[in-house]
Amino acid sequence: MARAGFTLGEIAEALQARLDGDPARIVTGVAPLDTAGPDQISFLTDPRYRDAARASRAGAFLAPSDVADLPGPTLRCAVPRQALIDLVRLFHPPAPAPPGVDRTAVVAADARVDPTATVGPLTVVESLAVIGAGVRLHALVHVGPGVQIGEGSVVYPHVSLREGVRVGRRVVIHAGAVLGADGFGFAFDGSAHRKVPQVGGVLIEDDVEIGANTTIDRATFGDTIVRRGTKIDNLVQIGHNVEVGEHSLLVAQVGVSGSSRLGRGVVLAGQVGVADHATLGDGVMVAAQSGIKGDVEAGSKVLGSPARPMAQASRIVAAQARLPELLHRVRALEHRLEQLTARLGLPPTEDARE
Amino acid sequence: MARAGFTLGEIAEALQARLDGDPARIVTGVAPLDTAGPDQISFLTDPRYRDAARASRAGAFLAPSDVADLPGPTLRCAVPRQALIDLVRLFHPPAPAPPGVDRTAVVAADARVDPTATVGPLTVVESLAVIGAGVRLHALVHVGPGVQIGEGSVVYPHVSLREGVRVGRRVVIHAGAVLGADGFGFAFDGSAHRKVPQVGGVLIEDDVEIGANTTIDRATFGDTIVRRGTKIDNLVQIGHNVEVGEHSLLVAQVGVSGSSRLGRGVVLAGQVGVADHATLGDGVMVAAQSGIKGDVEAGSKVLGSPARPMAQASRIVAAQARLPELLHRVRALEHRLEQLTARLGLPPTEDARE
Amino acid sequence: MARAGFTLGEIAEALQARLDGDPARIVTGVAPLDTAGPDQISFLTDPRYRDAARASRAGAFLAPSDVADLPGPTLRCAVPRQALIDLVRLFHPPAPAPPGVDRTAVVAADARVDPTATVGPLTVVESLAVIGAGVRLHALVHVGPGVQIGEGSVVYPHVSLREGVRVGRRVVIHAGAVLGADGFGFAFDGSAHRKVPQVGGVLIEDDVEIGANTTIDRATFGDTIVRRGTKIDNLVQIGHNVEVGEHSLLVAQVGVSGSSRLGRGVVLAGQVGVADHATLGDGVMVAAQSGIKGDVEAGSKVLGSPARPMAQASRIVAAQARLPELLHRVRALEHRLEQLTARLGLPPTEDARE
Repeated sequence: MARAGFTLGEIAEALQARLDGDPARIVTGVAPLDTAGPDQISFLTDPRYRDAARASRAGAFLAPSDVADLPGPTLRCAVPRQALIDLVRLFHPPAPAPPGVDRTAVVAADARVDPTATVGPLTVVESLAVIGAGVRLHALVHVGPGVQIGEGSVVYPHVSLREGVRVGRRVVIHAGAVLGADGFGFAFDGSAHRKVPQVGGVLIEDDVEIGANTTIDRATFGDTIVRRGTKIDNLVQIGHNVEVGEHSLLVAQVGVSGSSRLGRGVVLAGQVGVADHATLGDGVMVAAQSGIKGDVEAGSKVLGSPARPMAQASRIVAAQARLPELLHRVRALEHRLEQLTARLGLPPTEDARE
Repeated sequence: MARAGFTLGEIAEALQARLDGDPARIVTGVAPLDTAGPDQISFLTDPRYRDAARASRAGAFLAPSDVADLPGPTLRCAVPRQALIDLVRLFHPPAPAPPGVDRTAVVAADARVDPTATVGPLTVVESLAVIGAGVRLHALVHVGPGVQIGEGSVVYPHVSLREGVRVGRRVVIHAGAVLGADGFGFAFDGSAHRKVPQVGGVLIEDDVEIGANTTIDRATFGDTIVRRGTKIDNLVQIGHNVEVGEHSLLVAQVGVSGSSRLGRGVVLAGQVGVADHATLGDGVMVAAQSGIKGDVEAGSKVLGSPARPMAQASRIVAAQARLPELLHRVRALEHRLEQLTARLGLPPTEDARE
Repeated sequence: MARAGFTLGEIAEALQARLDGDPARIVTGVAPLDTAGPDQISFLTDPRYRDAARASRAGAFLAPSDVADLPGPTLRCAVPRQALIDLVRLFHPPAPAPPGVDRTAVVAADARVDPTATVGPLTVVESLAVIGAGVRLHALVHVGPGVQIGEGSVVYPHVSLREGVRVGRRVVIHAGAVLGADGFGFAFDGSAHRKVPQVGGVLIEDDVEIGANTTIDRATFGDTIVRRGTKIDNLVQIGHNVEVGEHSLLVAQVGVSGSSRLGRGVVLAGQVGVADHATLGDGVMVAAQSGIKGDVEAGSKVLGSPARPMAQASRIVAAQARLPELLHRVRALEHRLEQLTARLGLPPTEDARE
């Protein structure tokens, strides 16, 4: 799929980078500093790796404007981390998928599949589903009745999209993800948990990415919503009626319970849990394994289970290390005070009243 | 699937509710207080939302017997939360599935599929499996050799039921769940981990619900058991030889390790972990993210990792916030005591012996 | 699949065990001490269960060399836990799978499937994939383009192997696992998270086992690697560019973030989280629900979130239980010291300077 090679001149043009070195030189691939060989171009996106860059055997470099002394031709650009994305895409363009429905796919007669879409082997598209232009459904996908998938989205194998789920444009859904399973709602009637029917839907806006084996439940009423640009990692659980704001990041194994609302640009690190009916303001950042109950103000950084403001939580963590020692010191103080009181010939002092 | 509308009189009869208002009035759907319009019926199941109910534009209300002043015809009943289930089911009856085996399904010649069961497209039913009356297997399900599925159960796409798994009646298994994978059992022989064959089974009793991408391992010997009426959320892990008692609730991302036993009516909140060989008595409630090791007495409510009785754990959590301050106060006490001793012209007091 | 029965003589020979009892006696199955009947053989692998063994109704026993007094013929061997594996395999040999490609499987013309391999119903094998001798692909598996699967490996239903994933010999991949989904890599460009293309691969060495619904992401560059003999439980997340050393054990719901490196023989108990770019030395053991950030020295045992050396962490956990009491004692000390100072007619002592 990758082209055999590019000249540094071609790359400089594609990346709008300034080239120090021979524009006719050819490189055949991109690789990190420690593994790149003389035919490959490498990259310095973090100044901490400057020494590694100087020791690298790479045939060329992508680097910030102000870095000198690299051992080969250098493409300079303002934000190498962004330019690297273009560089890698140059060598690894998305694999083309021939449009059309595989002959082993099972597509309902009343489903609408755009002629530019690709439907892979043994994929099932149920009644009244609508598959947009350029969509790629890989093999063994299940698209339930009435599901809508917007232009340019990619759905990997073994994904389940339950009835009525709506997916925006340029969305990526990784293998095994389940969208639209019933929310976890039951009412105990004195002898058994009766199921509360979950008759709402799931709405995934444009440019969202959803990780492998992640689950996003349908709402009881209305919609569970993931707003545009949000990226969700693997094995994440999103409960019914949750709303995740735009451009948020949910790292692997996060769980968000029913009816919670996350603002814009929220970051939940790995294994974070959010209780039900919580509200997290814009830009909230939650450290790994933390537990959120209730509301968190916009812009806060929190840590711990239960989560507290980062600075306070860090002080508590540091103080915990001294807790066993503290027990000793308090015991010592009690002893010394008694000793002193006795030496002075005074009666024991009294406890404070609570 | 939903009928166009019902008169309030019809609804009152179906719900056995008392109607204050015009029985001929028609409503076309159910919606929450804040989104319901004049053609819809809404519901007040929690007295905290009384103000929202009074401000609602809904055309009718389901409410407790003692609530007055709602801005529309009102259906009164003793337990609105239960009646709401019936109300929603009225408007959203389960989608009917025409019985029969889809022509693209692959069913072993010696499997027994009840003629009233539905087998979806590209579903595989292996040798000697038994599919009961009214069962619905959605598309792309895998039913392994010798699996039994009881009357009225529903299995969503991409579910894997490994060989010999037994599923009761009216069980719901959401997409991507895996029942009967090998338990995690190995014995280190000095150079490698040898696999302990997992030759037991999985038994799911009647009326159980199992969430999307949840995994329930087969037993080493005997059975891993989920007793009747228990509801399990998404991404839950149940290890080999675990027994989960009747009418329990396991919220998303819970993990229960091998050979642990949960009593009847146990509630594990999200992301709880239970170590192996633990026993949780009837009615135990475990707060989110807690960790259980060893046994927990029936009726206990516990919190934390390691879990402690709720009241104690809450006191510890509160005290932790004061831990950094406590370090200062102890340092201050030490300083004051030294000062005092010196002022009195006494030699320093001695430490207590441990 | 299981043979009807074996004589104790046959079993003794197969297990190289010493038999005390009648070699002609026939047993028809293996069962634990509490459920075994007179036709079955049971086993004593843990001396704690000696009383249970003496009370057992089993028709024969597998036991350590030094255990006497069991109520039936006894097969003695040095390491009963290892011998038990052979014993169970004797009665439950792996189900034979007839070689060949099921007529409903979809195999690309240029894929190479060894004639001794089995490809189950509705399994998809894409272009240029290579399936080794004796491999068993169950039903509904997805094998992406260029995937390689080594001799004797077993892949259960609904597994997704994305393009280029390499799987060694005798590897077991349980249902629903996803290997090779894109790593979670994005670069914020000021208005949106841009996807960093994930063009690396996944390498699974020989004798690895991967649990149900576990996800192992492809590397950004290079490979995400799981070294030989390592066993991974269900619902585990392995991020991009992680390397897991040989013979490690990762228990259910563990998450390992990008670029972290685990040594040989590492044990991560259930729900452990490892942050990105951490290095865990050989033989590190991490207790359940712990959180690792940064490096952990070879041979360490750690606990807690954040994780600390086991002994220290245990002392902290114990001390936490006394934290509310400690608050009271410090308050009492402050009061007593004030009282004493006042009685002596001295001015209040001063706080220590921080």
